[in-house]
Amino acid sequence: MDEKKLEKNYVVGVDVGGQTSKLGVVDLRGEVLAQTVIRSDIYGDDANAFIKALAEAIKGIIEESGKEGQIRGVGVGAPNGNYYTGTIAFAPNLAWASNGTVEFAKLLSKNLDGLPVSLTNDANAAAVGEMIYGAAKGMKNFIMITLGTGVGSGIVVNGQVVYGHDGFAGELGHTTAVRHNGRACGCGKTGCLEAYCSAIGVARTAREWLEASNEPSLLRECDNITSKDVYEAARSGDQLAIRVFNYTGALLGRQFADFVAFSAPEAIVLFGGLARSKEFLYEPILNAMNENLLPIWKNKVKILFSQLKESDAAILGASALAWEL
Amino acid sequence: MDEKKLEKNYVVGVDVGGQTSKLGVVDLRGEVLAQTVIRSDIYGDDANAFIKALAEAIKGIIEESGKEGQIRGVGVGAPNGNYYTGTIAFAPNLAWASNGTVEFAKLLSKNLDGLPVSLTNDANAAAVGEMIYGAAKGMKNFIMITLGTGVGSGIVVNGQVVYGHDGFAGELGHTTAVRHNGRACGCGKTGCLEAYCSAIGVARTAREWLEASNEPSLLRECDNITSKDVYEAARSGDQLAIRVFNYTGALLGRQFADFVAFSAPEAIVLFGGLARSKEFLYEPILNAMNENLLPIWKNKVKILFSQLKESDAAILGASALAWEL
Repeated sequence: MDEKKLEKNYVVGVDVGGQTSKLGVVDLRGEVLAQTVIRSDIYGDDANAFIKALAEAIKGIIEESGKEGQIRGVGVGAPNGNYYTGTIAFAPNLAWASNGTVEFAKLLSKNLDGLPVSLTNDANAAAVGEMIYGAAKGMKNFIMITLGTGVGSGIVVNGQVVYGHDGFAGELGHTTAVRHNGRACGCGKTGCLEAYCSAIGVARTAREWLEASNEPSLLRECDNITSKDVYEAARSGDQLAIRVFNYTGALLGRQFADFVAFSAPEAIVLFGGLARSKEFLYEPILNAMNENLLPIWKNKVKILFSQLKESDAAILGASALAWEL
Repeated sequence: MDEKKLEKNYVVGVDVGGQTSKLGVVDLRGEVLAQTVIRSDIYGDDANAFIKALAEAIKGIIEESGKEGQIRGVGVGAPNGNYYTGTIAFAPNLAWASNGTVEFAKLLSKNLDGLPVSLTNDANAAAVGEMIYGAAKGMKNFIMITLGTGVGSGIVVNGQVVYGHDGFAGELGHTTAVRHNGRACGCGKTGCLEAYCSAIGVARTAREWLEASNEPSLLRECDNITSKDVYEAARSGDQLAIRVFNYTGALLGRQFADFVAFSAPEAIVLFGGLARSKEFLYEPILNAMNENLLPIWKNKVKILFSQLKESDAAILGASALAWEL
């Protein structure tokens, strides 16, 4: 069979994370035919070494899937990935891209014998994944908020991801949630949403509140409190932990009201590790959002939680980029 | 000459305002061939009466322009005008549309023997006007902020106005500028940008500050302070008036930083009566915005002031809608 005549009906999706990167071969229906995980954190500042390892892993899963010659391209979601330039620049969680600009799409394509590569940031990729395969299926206007180590966002308007003038649109984690005496954020500003409503922010709130009072709490038994500890404590009925989620949800909800005033989305979709605390976050978010919305939007904007497995959403979203290649 | 064979290379633009409505016949290059103004505020709650009068005025300027049979359609910008539904609903400044929903586009078309009518809100129309003929010429990503009696906005992403899921996107005047003890806003919320940075908000700031101190100021001689009085006082070197503009600009600038984090625009374009105070607003806005931007955007986002005559921008922007008909 002439290989050139094979239709290119498969793509590769790659989710680049700080510790690991997940990748899979995906068909037109969003089925993952083969997938694997590689480390991202063992290459120091050597971007080329990581990209070479990634290219080898991609070749491996393509071979495993049996779809050699039928791959249309590779879609990559990565922190600070820029759709327009194909570069990853100053990404604090990627040692090999934290101090400069890596021509990621170009280099990866070169290591894959010219296979086309499209890049965007991880939150945008997740938004595309939700739009095609997940909670936002069929929606043309929604906002994806990723509640992980940080707070990221992917904004969809008219069925298209908003990249903005420079490709960096959708940094809603760095809008200001607290104006007065706001917490220092990793970005250099103060009071950012991310400083309060990320996994790290939630743990920090708990620690601050424990220090400021003598209120009994299960969390006093933890050595180095994480957001997961706060979640477990809340599930056990710990009142302080529950209040931490109420506070976090209220900050998110009132901020969401401002986002709605911007793009009038049908829904805001929550994704990421902290979004698993749905049972404690949903009501506070919804109440605070509705309290701060204009009458035309009150009780009309949905708060949804991602239905996709996290690894799947990231791979699928990134792979969706490649269909446009 | 067979009228049917004439090309339809002209449109009508209508800017519906609370007191008056301006309308003009516009050609492909944005030249206004004929224009007029009618009252909007003498029809009580009778929407049909206003629409009939408007239709007559439109027929009048078409006749005056000599372009009968060559009009492609009518574009209308109006407060609370909804692009999707063609309706004007609960517009506080339009007596005939303040208590319900008016099927504006449909009724106007009917009164114009079926000539197509397209409707959007006034700020969106102004944004389109700036994009095609004004300060945002050639830009695909920018935000238009109208600083008038209220604070409105029109957002352009990828060359298209953002209407959102329901047609109401772009209510940036009702994002929260002041969280603690914020002023009551006409919308029912507190702390809205509009409550501080509209013409009314500026006058209110001046009045509050005069009451709170004995500082000498030219404004103490005014009976009922308006934003124009504050501007005149500032031009005369009045320190309190200048500080009112510094404060207003700082609130706008830090809010703009959050807007940039959303859609990464090339520029924010200011329009409307208060934007004429450019000499006192520009620096405070720019400084506060840059202080609150992520490093990737610092000193990169332009603050522009509309170059179009106000009446022209509104008519031209509304007329641009009609080209799509």
